[in-house]
This record gives sequence, C-alpha cells and structure tokens, in this order.
Amino acid sequence: MATTNGHTNGAPKSAEEIAKAAKKAFEASQLVTTEQRNEVLESIRHALQASKDKVFEANKLDLEAAEKEVQAGRLSQQLLKRLDLTKGSKFDDMLQGISDVAALPDPTGQVTYATKLDEEMELYRVTCPIGVLLVIFESRPEVVVNITALAIKSGNAAILKGGKESLHTASLLTSIIQSALSTSPLEPAFIQSVQTRQEISALLSQDRYIDLVIPRGSNALVRSIQQASRIAVMGHADGLCAVYLDESADETKAVRVTVDAKCDYPSACNAAETLLVHESLLTTVWPKVALALIEKGVQLRCDDASLAGLRCAQEVSGNKAFPSLVREIAPEDYDTEFLDLILAVKVVSSLSDAVQHINAHSSHHTDAIVTENAANGATFCRAVDSAGTFVNASTRFADGFRYGLGTEVGISTGRTHARGPVGLEGLVIYKYMIRSADGKGSIAGEFGTGKKPFLHQQMQGVIRLPF
Amino acid sequence: MATTNGHTNGAPKSAEEIAKAAKKAFEASQLVTTEQRNEVLESIRHALQASKDKVFEANKLDLEAAEKEVQAGRLSQQLLKRLDLTKGSKFDDMLQGISDVAALPDPTGQVTYATKLDEEMELYRVTCPIGVLLVIFESRPEVVVNITALAIKSGNAAILKGGKESLHTASLLTSIIQSALSTSPLEPAFIQSVQTRQEISALLSQDRYIDLVIPRGSNALVRSIQQASRIAVMGHADGLCAVYLDESADETKAVRVTVDAKCDYPSACNAAETLLVHESLLTTVWPKVALALIEKGVQLRCDDASLAGLRCAQEVSGNKAFPSLVREIAPEDYDTEFLDLILAVKVVSSLSDAVQHINAHSSHHTDAIVTENAANGATFCRAVDSAGTFVNASTRFADGFRYGLGTEVGISTGRTHARGPVGLEGLVIYKYMIRSADGKGSIAGEFGTGKKPFLHQQMQGVIRLPF
Repeated sequence: MATTNGHTNGAPKSAEEIAKAAKKAFEASQLVTTEQRNEVLESIRHALQASKDKVFEANKLDLEAAEKEVQAGRLSQQLLKRLDLTKGSKFDDMLQGISDVAALPDPTGQVTYATKLDEEMELYRVTCPIGVLLVIFESRPEVVVNITALAIKSGNAAILKGGKESLHTASLLTSIIQSALSTSPLEPAFIQSVQTRQEISALLSQDRYIDLVIPRGSNALVRSIQQASRIAVMGHADGLCAVYLDESADETKAVRVTVDAKCDYPSACNAAETLLVHESLLTTVWPKVALALIEKGVQLRCDDASLAGLRCAQEVSGNKAFPSLVREIAPEDYDTEFLDLILAVKVVSSLSDAVQHINAHSSHHTDAIVTENAANGATFCRAVDSAGTFVNASTRFADGFRYGLGTEVGISTGRTHARGPVGLEGLVIYKYMIRSADGKGSIAGEFGTGKKPFLHQQMQGVIRLPF
Repeated sequence: MATTNGHTNGAPKSAEEIAKAAKKAFEASQLVTTEQRNEVLESIRHALQASKDKVFEANKLDLEAAEKEVQAGRLSQQLLKRLDLTKGSKFDDMLQGISDVAALPDPTGQVTYATKLDEEMELYRVTCPIGVLLVIFESRPEVVVNITALAIKSGNAAILKGGKESLHTASLLTSIIQSALSTSPLEPAFIQSVQTRQEISALLSQDRYIDLVIPRGSNALVRSIQQASRIAVMGHADGLCAVYLDESADETKAVRVTVDAKCDYPSACNAAETLLVHESLLTTVWPKVALALIEKGVQLRCDDASLAGLRCAQEVSGNKAFPSLVREIAPEDYDTEFLDLILAVKVVSSLSDAVQHINAHSSHHTDAIVTENAANGATFCRAVDSAGTFVNASTRFADGFRYGLGTEVGISTGRTHARGPVGLEGLVIYKYMIRSADGKGSIAGEFGTGKKPFLHQQMQGVIRLPF
C-alpha cells in the first residue's frame, strides 16, 4: 500500500521526518506561480474524478467499520452520516470545491505597503504563504480535499490528520493527491497525512518546521491542542454568543433576530446562548420574544426579573398555563455553550450593564444588539470586545462565506494573526522586499542624522510588484 | 512605597490578579477615543517632566547598585551605561518619544474590508487593539515609558517587566504613569509593572487574560519565553543574515553592501553573518570584497574555494603576507550568529545553491543579493523564505524606522500575525461589525440557496466607519 506521507520505501516516518519533508517541499515551492498552483488543483480534481470508484470502495470499508461502532454504541449515527462520501452529490460537490478554490483571487503576491526609501530604492511588503500547516479535523473525509485545495491555493504545505473513522478514505484521497503532485511542480510531500494520535502529539512539538496548527472540530479538540503545542494555533474553542435587546428595541426585529440567532442552527458556534433584555422591555417586547422562542421549542432559563415579566404578561393575557419550557436560571448557565434549544436570559438595567455582562461571560465570538438608537448601536459595536459585533442582525451571519471571504478556513477566537471567520487571507503572512537601483548599491551607513534622510514617500492605490 | 501594579492597600498581587486587572482595564477602555488616548500621553509626559529630579534620584540608586556589580565583575560596563537615564539628553529624548508616538496615525479604527451584504446591511472589518500585552525587556529603564506610549496609543493594556538592575527607576516611572492615569479615562491598571522573574513565569501561564507576549532583549531571553508560554510571542530569537554576490554582481555594489551589512553595526540582528560568493567571482570581485572587509578588521572564515580564490589573487598581486584575519571555516560557522566582526564565507555554483543554503541556514530574518541581473534579483526575493529579501541593498535597512513604520515595536521572525520589523500595526487586530438598517432586522435564515442571495458588493477606496 502506498504510504501517504511522501515516503516511498514503506518504512513509517517519524514526526520530525514528516515535518521536515513538509518544510522542504514548502521551500522548494517558492517559485511556483499562481497559474501553476491552479493547474495543480485541476489535475488533482481530475485524478480524484478518475478514482471515484476506488474512493467509494475505501469509503465503504470505513462505513462498515463505523456501522459496527454505532451498533456497539460507541459512535453516533450523526458521525456515521458525516463519514459517508457516497451519498447524493457529496463527491461531486467535493470536486467542485477544488475548482471553486482555484477560481478565488490569489491571496499571495499582493503588495500591502510600498514606500520609496530613497530616489532609487523602494520597499514593498508582499503577501506570501506562512509555511507548513498542520490541520487536525474530525470525521468528514472530504475535509482532506478541501484543506488540500486551500493549502495549495495559498502556497502552504500541509500535514493533515483526520478522524480514525475515516482512515481508509482519507489515506486513499491523500495517495491520489500525492500521485497528482508527483507529476507537478510541487513535491508530493507538499500534502501529507498522518493517521494516529501519537503522531499528532509528536508533530505538535515540531515548532522548528510547522508554523501554524489549525484544529477543526469540537471545543475539546481545539482546547487540547492549544494546551499541547507552542506552535501558533488558529481555532475557536467556544462560541458563546449573546443577543441584547436594548431599551429602544423594535419588537419585530427583537423577535426575528433572537429566534434566528437561537434557532436557525442551534449547534453552530455562532448561535446565541444568552439573551440580555433591557428592564424597560419586561412586559412589552420580552414576552413576545419569549413566546416566539417557546413556539420554536426553546427552553428559557430565566433570572427572577425576566420570570416576573413573563408572569406579569401571562396574568394580563389571562390564559394558558405557565409554559413548561420556562425554568429558573442556574449561575453557570451564563457561561455554558448549550449548542441546543436552550437560552439563558438575564435582565439588565443599561447598555453598559449588557456590555459588561458580555465582556465577562461571552467567548468574544459574536454578539448582537437590537436597537433603534444609532448611538447605542455604535457604542455596543465598540464596547463589546468580540470578533463580531452586530446591530439588528443575527449572530448567525458570522461566517466566512456570508462575509464574502470566498471560503472559510476556520473561525478564530484568537486575538493575533486572524480573528473571526478566516478566509484565505488567514493562511498568508508577508515579507518585505527592497529593490535598489542606486548606481553604487544602497547602504545603511549613508542614512541618518546629519546624513541622507529617508524619503518615506508612501505609494498610494493598488500597487503591483514591479519585479 | 507605592506599588506599581495598580494596587492600593500595599499587599502584593498575584500574577492572576495583575493579569485580570489588566484585562478589566482593557475592557473598560473600549470607548476611550483616539483624542483622549493622545491627551493621556501628553499628561504622562507632563507628570514625568515634573518628577525629573525624583526619577534621577531613583536612577542614582540603581546606578550605585550596578556599579558595585560591575566592580564585582557580575555586570558589564556596557549594561551600566544603558541603565543611566541622567546622561546627556536621554531623559528629554524619552519624553519627546511620548509626543512622537502620540503624533503617529491611530492604528485602530481603520476599516480594512467593507462589503454590502444586503441592500440595507453592511459588514465592516475595523482594526482594534489586541488586549493585554506582556512586555519583557532588559536593563534600559526608558523602555517603560516607550512601551507605555506604544500601548496607550494602540489601546492595549500592558504589563511591563524590566531588568532587576533598573528596579528603582522602572518602579518610579510606573508609579508616575499610574498617577497620571488615575485622573484620566484609562484605569491605572492599564499600565502595570512587575519586578521579579517568579512573577514573569506565573504571568506566562495567564493565557486567559494576556494576549501577546513581547520579549525585547537577548536571544536567550526570547527563546526561554517562547519555550515557557502558550501565549502568542512576538520576538526574534536570531538574526542570522546572509549576503549573496551573484554571478553578475557589480564590484562597487558588492564591496559597499557587504561591508555595510557586516560592519555598520555588527552586534545588530540585521548585520550579515554569512557571505555567499558565486564561483565566477573567485578571483575578481571576491578578493576586492575580502580586502575591504579585512581593512575594517573583519575576520573571514572561508571554505576551501574562497580561500583558493584569495591565494590566487594574492599570487597575482605578488605582495603582502597572507592576511592573518583569514581562517578556515568550521561547519558550525554557517549556523552561528557572531554579532561581531566575523563573517562566514562560502562559494556557491548557482543562484539556486545560494537560495538553498540561505533557506537551510539563515534565521529567515533578512538576506540580500548583489546582482546586475534583474531576473535573478526577482528570483532571489521570491525564493528566499525570509522576512526581508533585498536587491543591491544592505541587510541593515531591516528596521521599523528605516521602513517608515514610524516606530518599531520589535522585529519578528515569527510567521503569523507580524513578520519582520513591526510598527504599531503589530499591536492591533480587527473585529467585524455588521449594521443592518433593514426594517425588520436581518436574519440568516432568509439567505442561502433558493432564498435571498448575498450581494457581497465590496466597497473600494478609503472607507470610514459610518457609525
């Protein structure tokens, strides 16, 4: 069987060998052009298309093994479903995804700063790939192809680790990709995959060769990787989002935004887990919002004030038994990512209280205000220290595709490099290039106090690297 | 004595309390405007000016203690000199530095991406501070004031740790800064300082509150911090830069660029440590470059081919004894940051060999090519995987001020967030803001396949946040 880490003699490679081979493949790729990388992507698409039957066979092996795990109660039916690459248009969608990524603008080679240092000397800051990515994900085998496309498009080498449930499929997909690479300007080790957890923990210490770790999966996975590695990690460990209904909240907007934020996809990281209600809305907007949520089957965990508001509204309406979906809050509920039809509710007496609650309890992912007061909207956006702050829009918009980033590499709750939904831009960094056309060459000793001054004439507009 | 971590009752605070107070001060500062932050900087300048005598007294205490250490041979004379804040215009320069930073453009509040998602819904990506910085530096006490200015300007709270030699001066400077903050819109805990190494190691585990660690000092300091912390670290552990003399190198440029790169400031991280010479230059350009270096007192550690070139040139000239500054290379010399008048020399047979040597041995800091061939210059800039790649310009230009960044927070050899010389931009990240003016509020459930499409009309040019 072909190994999938670019090794040909069959002996397993150590984590260091894998990481070193990735870095070598990355360094060897520096002169591969955008057009060539796009061609590589198309050749991978064709190779996968030609091996569709084989991929399905490998996928069947994984599915059979997984079914046994499901029967034994060790795996969920949902995970089994995610594993299946043969269903519907999943395989074709996976291939189309490669072409979609190829069609995106090149994130590398962009000049983001340029300045004239001297009459004949210019400085350019140019985007370029980061280096070697280690991407760790769970069961869905098509992620191998998806990440491969993103890595090649952005010029980064990648080491992939999928869930053990997708072992056969992921290994075969990587083999096919490496075969395609072997006749391309990129080395086969540009994309490698590893299979075991042991390999991952060894790879996490290869900070000499690996530049960025991207965990895609559960909070537990992300946290364990952040704990285990000194390498930069791009991932989100939590999505504890809040919606705040401000004093001036419009009822229709309050109902629609809250219901969408909670119910559109409750298990997503951008779903709301906490609702903050201004005290002035207790018997007006709040009961309407509560009713709409209850109709959607949402369990409300309420503090005393919000409970009182509901009881009061119920007495006025004079009907129906008190809804069974309404419960008393427990203190930990404000720090819990339910990922379910459950919402923690708290009454606040001011915008400032709402902001303080969010900054103290939210995961700094995405939070929204519903307000008719533009100044309060602006204050909320600035004062809430989260990756996304929205006015009269659902937290569910926090997503790379919805933001128009073309693709989503992940969502970062980190505060350096990339924050929030991350597109291809999150896979690049930059380097500085100086070109001197000075007849004698440019030397630093000729500049400074009492010598030549630097011009520092910043070039404006869209600048292309002239060499 | 006033403590310098924003604590008033005299009891020492734990690392967690310090870090938590910093985060709280950061969160409380979100609505403080650019203008207010600039005013705070000016008030700090005035407070320091008014306390000049006291600062000099504290500095004298540090100097006296340091002199004893020098006499005991435990401290270098150079370090003692760095500690002295009373010499010449050092104090006034320190104060002027505050105003210089205040005068820089605000790195926060810049819209770097904006797109119309729907007719009445816009998305803005806006730069903002990162959060809490932990800055660790060595003896120079004025760094306290310098970092304070950068942190306040960029809206980041900071915890500072200087060398133990500057204890009295640094503590007093921080007290004065905190007094000034206590009557400002920023909380005193926005700038704190800690004194002991124990506190640092405890702080390095406060990843819940501290967002970025910036070590400024020796390689050993930077490396030990990178090893000890899971928090993002921005620093450079090495500066092993190379100059490559290409086949077509002009003699004048070769001599000037190499001599400047090596001799302008040999202990700087952007000084050259390695010279690569194309084999075609062995008896032409290379001996001229060697002679110029020897005249400057540079010891040349040469491989066999470069040695042979020198001998051959000497035989032709027929005079002088073989220079004593020329030695044979040892293999580790190509991986050594000499920080001294020593240069490792290697002959290569092609541009590609030069690139491979640099990618394998340099610290990916800054490398330069001397060439008259524009295509080779462009190839070098792309193929060398370093933060700076220069054509016919000395590696010594790699510097924040020289790049026109206004200031230099540090130089990063990291590959995420910031790379190369880092200005105020390195102290900011961004957040996404959505503003919907849709009459019913914007909800995600109404968009997608078969529903409303996203407009994704990217706004062009310089965009100001409209709210």
